[in-house]
Parts: sequence; structure tokens; C-alpha cells
Amino acid sequence: MTKAEILSKLNLEELIGTPFENMIDITKIKRGSSVYYERLKEFNTCYIIEGHIQHIVYTPDGGEFYRDLYEDEITGVNFCFSKKISQERFRLFDVDIVAKEDSKIAYLPLDKIMDLEFKGKSAVLKKLIMMGVEDHFKEFKYLLLKNVYSDEQFFIKHLEKCQTIDIGSTRIISEHLNINLRTLQRLLKNLQDQGIIERTGDKLSIKDPVKLGKYKEKFEK
Amino acid sequence: MTKAEILSKLNLEELIGTPFENMIDITKIKRGSSVYYERLKEFNTCYIIEGHIQHIVYTPDGGEFYRDLYEDEITGVNFCFSKKISQERFRLFDVDIVAKEDSKIAYLPLDKIMDLEFKGKSAVLKKLIMMGVEDHFKEFKYLLLKNVYSDEQFFIKHLEKCQTIDIGSTRIISEHLNINLRTLQRLLKNLQDQGIIERTGDKLSIKDPVKLGKYKEKFEK
Repeated sequence: MTKAEILSKLNLEELIGTPFENMIDITKIKRGSSVYYERLKEFNTCYIIEGHIQHIVYTPDGGEFYRDLYEDEITGVNFCFSKKISQERFRLFDVDIVAKEDSKIAYLPLDKIMDLEFKGKSAVLKKLIMMGVEDHFKEFKYLLLKNVYSDEQFFIKHLEKCQTIDIGSTRIISEHLNINLRTLQRLLKNLQDQGIIERTGDKLSIKDPVKLGKYKEKFEK
Repeated sequence: MTKAEILSKLNLEELIGTPFENMIDITKIKRGSSVYYERLKEFNTCYIIEGHIQHIVYTPDGGEFYRDLYEDEITGVNFCFSKKISQERFRLFDVDIVAKEDSKIAYLPLDKIMDLEFKGKSAVLKKLIMMGVEDHFKEFKYLLLKNVYSDEQFFIKHLEKCQTIDIGSTRIISEHLNINLRTLQRLLKNLQDQGIIERTGDKLSIKDPVKLGKYKEKFEK
């Protein structure tokens, strides 16, 4: 995938041929490796060309929050502009990017667009507003639902949506859903003991929808 | 406060004298009253001229999430643009605005700016990007900390930050911190019984910082 193709994928064709195109940096990252923190400070926006990466957000006292990202997703749209607001954001949250599979990513310093002059800039600024809003809604929706629902409800909703979950290890699901590992293990054991879910090889699925329906009644007000 | 003064407060002077100025709608809302849902769909951005209002976000199955807003704050910056992305957002979350005190608010249809032509539009679009980012960070920070910390840690952090909490009723704190009312009452009773916090009249404060320090050790990894 060329830089022009990435811009085209992102619906930012106006930037093809501008100095911004050369600011894009395409990199391969090996499964399990992490992006240097210093590099991340410089480039906050990251488009996943292929693979699977994970954002880890750290709070000052050791809390961790995970976000999984896959092919054709872009992350950090709001983060990259935050430099212009405040230099202090890194005091609140440290961020790391880890490749969960061999991946290819493109760093896009979207914030630089604000200071460039080129034809169609106004259209691009509009699109940046929309990209920021989309990113906001993705995170807002996820975080809000995590807040409103208990870990148990959140897991069941996820299972109902996916029907089958590939389970390499419970740790992967624990990170993906931001549920404490021991809480998740207890929950899975409980649901299996009651015959509500079952594990076949590497797959986790709903065994008895009627029992699940009954189980869910306890969440109702 | 005139419409021009609001635009000036928001650092959007370029819009003074444009058709947008007339699109601003200033309204008084009485304590306890709610903004009609239909009206809210039309105007998502709301600037608090004076008073205290509360956003309530409802999930499809009855979860509630609260956000308190005070004088000189603006909310809904990202929401107002979401109409341009998708008509579906209201299926996921219903929103209500309730006045917690007699308040004066200004509705600003910021999304309309995108389609207007006026001098300095590019500068205004840049500022809209920054406003959206600020709004994103406020919500992100709050929701992320709520996710990472237990209700207990979250309450203690709040108390340490404020030192003294005005407590009309525990319900108000419960909504403000998005902690289940009964969980909060149990927590307050526990902290009072242990002599860590004390209630004097309408004020809640830290009674014994040393005991609090010891209590907090259990949160450490």
C-alpha cells in the first residue's frame, strides 16, 4: 500500500502530492514488539495497514486500559491534536503500542496539516473534524458501556454479539474486554458450571440460550 | 451576556456578525426542569451561561450515566457533528439535559458552521477541531479513570482532590461520581465507622489522613 493509497483510503485525497504525503511513515512491527515511547510521542496517529495492534493506556498509579485495533482502523486522531492544547497530557496517561501479530502500520502526523497551506484545505479540516468525532464515539461508546454494565453483563453482551469467541488464553479476552483476569476466570467457570456456556477446543460459545436468558434476568431492574 | 459575547468567550470571534450569530438560541431553564428531547436532537451543543445542568445518558436497557456541567462550560461539541456521520447514534444512547439549578444556557448549532461561507473559516475550523479534542479528553479522562479504578478508589480520589464535599444528599454525589447509590452509602458508612472521614453538617471531609493512607494501601499492587 502506497502513501497515496492510504490517503485515499482515509478519504483525504486532497493531501496526495502535498508535503504531508512525505511525512507519512510506514513501518513493520514484529509480533510481540512494542513501539518506542519516544517515537509515539512524536507520531500519535497510527493507521493499521495490516495486522493487529493493541494500545495500552497506563494511569499514574499503575492502572491499565487496553484497546485492540485491526486492519484499516486509525487511532489517535484526537490525541495527535492534543499537543496543541497542552503539553501536560503525558503526565496523566502513558501510552504504549504493542503488536499482537506481525503488523504494518503508517504513522500520520495529522496535526501538521493544520499548519500547511494547500488547495482544498477547508475540505480536509472538515474531514479531520469528522475523523475526530468518529474516534470519540468509538471510545465513548466502549467506555460508557463498560461503566454502565458490570463485568459480567459486559462479557455476556460480547458473547451474544460474537456467538463464538476464539480463546487462545483467557488473558487475551481479559485484555480485549478490559476485565480483570481473575474476575473473568471466575465468571467463565461459573457460567460453564451452570451449563450456560461451553468450551470446545479453542472456542467458547453459548450452550443453552434458555438458561442464559434466565441468568440475565438478574440484571434487570 | 449577548450572543457576540458568547462567541468571544468561546474564542470564535470570526463568527460575530455572520449568519451563525443569529442561530444561537439563549434560554432560561428552571431548576428541576428538563430540556425537551426533540429540541435536544436539533441542538446538541450547549454553553452554560450560568447555573448547573446535568447530562443524563441512557443505554438501551436502562443504564444511566451522568455528567455535571457548570458556568462557562460547553458540551456536545462532538455530538453535534455526529449527525453528519450517522443518523443512528440515537438508537444507542438517549440523552436528557436537566437543570440542577435555575440556569441560562445557549444552544449553538456548531455543525452548521461547516456549511457556511465567511471570512476566517479555516481558522474557525481549526478551533472546532481543538474544541472537539478538549471535549474528548474531558470525557475520556473521566470514563477511563472510572474504568480503571474501583468505585471506592474513585470516591477517595475525588475526596482527596476536593478535601471537603458539600453533601446535600448522597444521591447528588452518587450521580456526580456515577457510583451506584447503595454502593456509595455502604462505602461512606464504612469510612465513617473506621474514623477515616467525618460528616459535619452538610460537609464531608477527611478526618484522619494517616488512617486514610493506611486504608489506601490495599489498592496497591
